[in-house]
Amino acid sequence: MDKTLRAYIEKLDRLELGQMYETDFLLTWDKTLDELKAVFTVADALRYLRQNNLSTRVFDSGLGVSLFRDRSTRTRFSFAAACNLLGLAVQDLDEEKSQIAHGETVRETAAMVSFMADVVGIRDDLYIGRGHTGQLAFAEAVSQGKKEGVLEQRPTLVNLQCDIDHPTQCMADLLHLIHEFGGIENLKGRKLAMTWAYSPSYGKPLSVPQGVIGLMTRFGMDVVLAHPEGYEVMPQIEEIARTNARESGGSFTRTHSMQEAFRDADIVYPKSWAPFAAMQERTELCSSGDAKAMEELEKRLLAQNARHRSWCCTEERLAATKNGKALYLHCLPADVQSPGRGGEVEASVFERFRPLLYKEAGYKPYVIAAMIFLAKFRDPAGVLRALEERGRPRKFCAPEKRTPLL
Amino acid sequence: MDKTLRAYIEKLDRLELGQMYETDFLLTWDKTLDELKAVFTVADALRYLRQNNLSTRVFDSGLGVSLFRDRSTRTRFSFAAACNLLGLAVQDLDEEKSQIAHGETVRETAAMVSFMADVVGIRDDLYIGRGHTGQLAFAEAVSQGKKEGVLEQRPTLVNLQCDIDHPTQCMADLLHLIHEFGGIENLKGRKLAMTWAYSPSYGKPLSVPQGVIGLMTRFGMDVVLAHPEGYEVMPQIEEIARTNARESGGSFTRTHSMQEAFRDADIVYPKSWAPFAAMQERTELCSSGDAKAMEELEKRLLAQNARHRSWCCTEERLAATKNGKALYLHCLPADVQSPGRGGEVEASVFERFRPLLYKEAGYKPYVIAAMIFLAKFRDPAGVLRALEERGRPRKFCAPEKRTPLL
Amino acid sequence: MDKTLRAYIEKLDRLELGQMYETDFLLTWDKTLDELKAVFTVADALRYLRQNNLSTRVFDSGLGVSLFRDRSTRTRFSFAAACNLLGLAVQDLDEEKSQIAHGETVRETAAMVSFMADVVGIRDDLYIGRGHTGQLAFAEAVSQGKKEGVLEQRPTLVNLQCDIDHPTQCMADLLHLIHEFGGIENLKGRKLAMTWAYSPSYGKPLSVPQGVIGLMTRFGMDVVLAHPEGYEVMPQIEEIARTNARESGGSFTRTHSMQEAFRDADIVYPKSWAPFAAMQERTELCSSGDAKAMEELEKRLLAQNARHRSWCCTEERLAATKNGKALYLHCLPADVQSPGRGGEVEASVFERFRPLLYKEAGYKPYVIAAMIFLAKFRDPAGVLRALEERGRPRKFCAPEKRTPLL
Repeated sequence: MDKTLRAYIEKLDRLELGQMYETDFLLTWDKTLDELKAVFTVADALRYLRQNNLSTRVFDSGLGVSLFRDRSTRTRFSFAAACNLLGLAVQDLDEEKSQIAHGETVRETAAMVSFMADVVGIRDDLYIGRGHTGQLAFAEAVSQGKKEGVLEQRPTLVNLQCDIDHPTQCMADLLHLIHEFGGIENLKGRKLAMTWAYSPSYGKPLSVPQGVIGLMTRFGMDVVLAHPEGYEVMPQIEEIARTNARESGGSFTRTHSMQEAFRDADIVYPKSWAPFAAMQERTELCSSGDAKAMEELEKRLLAQNARHRSWCCTEERLAATKNGKALYLHCLPADVQSPGRGGEVEASVFERFRPLLYKEAGYKPYVIAAMIFLAKFRDPAGVLRALEERGRPRKFCAPEKRTPLL
Repeated sequence: MDKTLRAYIEKLDRLELGQMYETDFLLTWDKTLDELKAVFTVADALRYLRQNNLSTRVFDSGLGVSLFRDRSTRTRFSFAAACNLLGLAVQDLDEEKSQIAHGETVRETAAMVSFMADVVGIRDDLYIGRGHTGQLAFAEAVSQGKKEGVLEQRPTLVNLQCDIDHPTQCMADLLHLIHEFGGIENLKGRKLAMTWAYSPSYGKPLSVPQGVIGLMTRFGMDVVLAHPEGYEVMPQIEEIARTNARESGGSFTRTHSMQEAFRDADIVYPKSWAPFAAMQERTELCSSGDAKAMEELEKRLLAQNARHRSWCCTEERLAATKNGKALYLHCLPADVQSPGRGGEVEASVFERFRPLLYKEAGYKPYVIAAMIFLAKFRDPAGVLRALEERGRPRKFCAPEKRTPLL
Repeated sequence: MDKTLRAYIEKLDRLELGQMYETDFLLTWDKTLDELKAVFTVADALRYLRQNNLSTRVFDSGLGVSLFRDRSTRTRFSFAAACNLLGLAVQDLDEEKSQIAHGETVRETAAMVSFMADVVGIRDDLYIGRGHTGQLAFAEAVSQGKKEGVLEQRPTLVNLQCDIDHPTQCMADLLHLIHEFGGIENLKGRKLAMTWAYSPSYGKPLSVPQGVIGLMTRFGMDVVLAHPEGYEVMPQIEEIARTNARESGGSFTRTHSMQEAFRDADIVYPKSWAPFAAMQERTELCSSGDAKAMEELEKRLLAQNARHRSWCCTEERLAATKNGKALYLHCLPADVQSPGRGGEVEASVFERFRPLLYKEAGYKPYVIAAMIFLAKFRDPAGVLRALEERGRPRKFCAPEKRTPLL
């Protein structure tokens, strides 16, 4: 057996995965540390197989349903790539082309799109208090459908971003850290600054900062959350971060100074988001359909943002990080500064980190594929082993030309 | 050979299928009884194979083209699932993104999308006199394309709902009845009430009631069509129902009383639809583009509907059915009553039947797959047999873990 | 080995293909004559295999990304069919559903959609000076992504129409000529008239006439470009055509008379397009967002068109071609004359050529598949040989029923 693949399989064999089979991936804090590690290991293994032209198609038909309630390029393509990697065809549920009235029929919709679905990916991040709740309702609906014999199988749900977490993004971010720092064990004691940054746009979701503090605190890092006053995230997620930090031997602190957060940081994640309270207000205005009040809220928020234009990831600020060499993270697309236009990051910083940022994004398809893989196979290590034995090339090649791994 | 699969194959072997190979599925009354039974048998066999993790992928590339001229969730997903089950990739023909001018170029469109299409599914139910006619024109166009050497193969057409029939829906309804009543032979003598029901919306197609009376009359059932005066369906379809009933030893009657229709019924199918004459009027107004007249027509129809709010599937009415236990059918989505809002069905009735309704819907993907399968293989029984021999799992599993069927 | 397939393989073996592997297909004049011939040969071979029910799936997962900045039916379906033929799933990049701001982020978009993409097809023909430039920028972006380790593999780009060329269309046109004239060598000395024709619509791209004169001049044909004064195409493409003609022993001439162009022609390609200068003006107005000036430009162009209604492919004009039997080509959809409405072609002419026009269009999926195939395999002849050996049917059939080729 190939040495690298064996190492992944042995790593997997040492983890406790009992809980992942046939479950969903909605929030990272619902998962054990071993389960998170399993995602990283399977993601790496799938990537290794594909890079060595070994097919990882484990489904010979089957659907991956995607439901996007917000615009998306990165996540949409990542989900499509992940499904395709495993042999599933993607079917978009486009609510505009469907007869679905949002909300009241979640149980019916869930059943109707799931008859032959192996996985359902949902992005629903626009309204506070709705995204995660909606995903839970969907999960409950397919569970009931399975129990009542309506569904032959229960599709796995993958949260492609909700109002409180963005697990596929944050897990990709973390896999990137693992690769950059040479192993998950090397993250212990590192300082990570999740900081707000100025953007001339408005209403960005809170799921990334919340997802980051909810996940990164589990690996013994010193996580600092920095933002101007008034840009608080959801208090219950901060509580989760505090508990995580205690358990992992790291720390979780807050500050209103970007400078302080950057000081001696190993990793910085400067990114704009809307204040939680404002998002709540917006959600209520949306429900009431008060367009004028919505407009005023937007103006007020942009004016509020404008008071914090100095919150930018500059060269100068980066110089104050650990050895002046902190790793810069972003979920993309970033608001890059340009002459006369403020942004989250100075152009020269962004340029320098561009290839690394794209690598960071490149882990997402594999992270999603690993989440599906682990939910679908009771013995993921055994399946990886069997895939190597099957030795089917992803891209056709004559038998005599196959590599040693094949 | 597996016993259950053998039973399906033997059933299939006893049927006369000469006419199905390389034809379309547009109207159930174009098909012989044996052909309809073949669809049910193949649908059950494909479902059995999939449930036992045996791949039914019979195409190693190939396209299923879908063309929806009306909103759809259920049928869209059913078609996608059916194609996927057989190994075809779905390609949507989105007329808004295309250069197609409706009507004049049906022959050209048909050729352009069919070069590598194995099946084309069309929903075109919005206008009386256009849907079925359009499908015939499409069918003629691909036949001509094949004859002239333009197309290497002629794709099979599947009617995903037209102005006069909705065969994939009604066949799924009937397969549900077969399972609920324990066999097609047990439907003989049953009373089925296809009745109009009140809905606060307007302009629902006639294809379901027409499809139901055109299909259910072929199995010896006593089919009653009930609706208020003025809600007539197309007279030629009633004529078909009458002829069917005569030939099958059942009956077809009409009434203007929902109560009478429900009395001693074994099966009830209460559903709103627009009056045929009104739909014709709307079609003409649409052609002339008279928006004001359209609006007035809508108002008039809603007012007309409102006079029949009592046409609702209530607990009380259900109590008057055979042993108070009639099976409630619906094509979904249903207009469920809520406080202050009339509907087709009382909430408690709908709740009680919800799992059964979803099961009913769950047959549709298999019914569509069976229609395609029978049009594509001259010897469907032989192919099912060969699929078992091939023994390829749908979801990957190591050889030693395969089930006896595999 | 099958005789026909062997002939294709031997033809391929005689061609020099060193440059095609891992490159893009953006402009036909970037390719050597041998490379163009390889596309035709592989297209024919793939078609032959599929017609004989041999699967040509060479990818066991992988994505084909399509990016359409203009409406499309024919090319969209051709690209989808080509990807499917090779085993790739199509993922559309719909800019309206994405977070992409056109232009500034081409490098980022290119990376984000390409992580698992084997091919990217782009249509970007709306603005002069942007389409090809944009494709080059995309090509550069994925090259850089590969170099920096962001992309595991560099996807192949296929130009599905830009502002200066439409290679998948023109190569399909030429493959049609090869089949109609019995071989590429029989095109030498033929007269081909690429002529402007009247259409009551406005702003048709120049890519087809330019693509035609840039490609057809390479095979020793006498290519005449005819149009009214003011309908010039881009001068640099005319220059390419002149050079091509010199090298191939053919000729390239211009005239302002449709009649002259048709005289003794073997092939006529009458098609409307907008004047290059007007398209440039439109591009500038678009950038400035001057809607009123845009409207005036459109009026002016339509009025200008109207002065040339006589530029129509009539029966009378066709009678003056070689033996009155020139082959009529069109990329479709054509503006066919109808009573009271001018057009590019008389109805009777169009009707007579309809099947041939559809055959012409039918080569496009295979041409695209061949472009991908040649970019993906260093030894395309060897892969074709191995595909025959693999003998996997496209449509399932029991082993004992397979044809000799299988």
